[in-house]
Amino acid sequence: MKKMIIASTSTLHGGTYLEYLLPMLEHHFSNAKTIVFIPFARPGGISHDEYTAKVSDAFAKIGKSVVGLHTFADPKQAVMEAEGIFTGGGNTFQLVSQLYALDLWDSLRAALEKGTPYLGCSAGSNITGVSMQTTNDMPIVYPPSFQTLGAIPFNLNPHYLDPDANSTHMGETRETRIKEFHVYNRLPVLGLREGSWLEVHGGTITLRGALTARLFLQGQEPVELESGTNLSDL
Amino acid sequence: MKKMIIASTSTLHGGTYLEYLLPMLEHHFSNAKTIVFIPFARPGGISHDEYTAKVSDAFAKIGKSVVGLHTFADPKQAVMEAEGIFTGGGNTFQLVSQLYALDLWDSLRAALEKGTPYLGCSAGSNITGVSMQTTNDMPIVYPPSFQTLGAIPFNLNPHYLDPDANSTHMGETRETRIKEFHVYNRLPVLGLREGSWLEVHGGTITLRGALTARLFLQGQEPVELESGTNLSDL
Repeated sequence: MKKMIIASTSTLHGGTYLEYLLPMLEHHFSNAKTIVFIPFARPGGISHDEYTAKVSDAFAKIGKSVVGLHTFADPKQAVMEAEGIFTGGGNTFQLVSQLYALDLWDSLRAALEKGTPYLGCSAGSNITGVSMQTTNDMPIVYPPSFQTLGAIPFNLNPHYLDPDANSTHMGETRETRIKEFHVYNRLPVLGLREGSWLEVHGGTITLRGALTARLFLQGQEPVELESGTNLSDL
Repeated sequence: MKKMIIASTSTLHGGTYLEYLLPMLEHHFSNAKTIVFIPFARPGGISHDEYTAKVSDAFAKIGKSVVGLHTFADPKQAVMEAEGIFTGGGNTFQLVSQLYALDLWDSLRAALEKGTPYLGCSAGSNITGVSMQTTNDMPIVYPPSFQTLGAIPFNLNPHYLDPDANSTHMGETRETRIKEFHVYNRLPVLGLREGSWLEVHGGTITLRGALTARLFLQGQEPVELESGTNLSDL
């Protein structure tokens, strides 16, 4: 039975790393002493060790220890035996490439299915969707596929940003980019603003946090969903 | 001998499509009566025909006719025999996928080498670099490779945006994304602001327009380059 928190961002403006999530994480990971951390998205190119140290500092505040997945001789086994799993944000192309290089997708799916508590932030949330094709990240490495976990039956756009009416910039808005996705793909896309997250308990997916989220369905006008909305039937 | 204009954007804020480029394009395409237009990037999912009509309207102002590459039975031949070529903006992943599907890369390289005047805007500029790995676009389709024309010996980031000091958004800035590219890649990246373009004459590449451009080299602090800078030795 899945038990996941899928967050738009690790950090809110003015807050510290994971700060706004910690009270909930204490409950989410209540049966875990040690969290296996997947550092492969390497935000800003930070090393696996540095990234793991940053995550350790945050989880220490709720009495959890953290071990980087890159330190295990058998990462598949580490995922299967983990008491809890956290995939951090950064570059989704790099994260997905590394998960393919280590052939970790089936192990991650099996861990999620058996109820290992999971936290994803940003890139670590992108990979819970059907594909990474609605990421905001730059394609700095070429992954063997864009397919991801499919732990939820739709795609996410984390850090969702509304169009800025005062902007003079002529690049595409986020909404335009997602509409372009729907020219070639049918999959629903949920624009998850910073401060929103999805709570997955078994087959139930619920929007959480103070904000609304923006749902894009192929061929339809986007709609705003209230916090508390059940997304299981998307 | 190459003869290319590689522009950050097709349209400036408050201007009409291609408006700011038209006086220069009249000169650039002076020996061409008809421009072959590559519409594959499909901005906003617009059809090839609709996109070609929009481009025709703009080029009509300088007395040029436009034919969409999608209308030719033999697109390779069309590229090789073109009097001028324009690749429009939109989604770079879709553009690159289509150029691979039609196996057009070598024909495009040959046309550029023999001096066919070329205009690229945005996605159509991205493909003149060594790879499309510094695009801002969403990976809405999976191309067989990220390698592109290599008509210039570096990569571009069109629509380059400076960090917004007042932003509360926690997503990566453009500069952070390009620095992440340099964790895994050595290639120089030129951040080309809207209103800037590159002029390529033979082996000489010159920055044009009123603005500076931001050059990112692996392991170095980015620098601002003045308009008129010769980029041939990057």
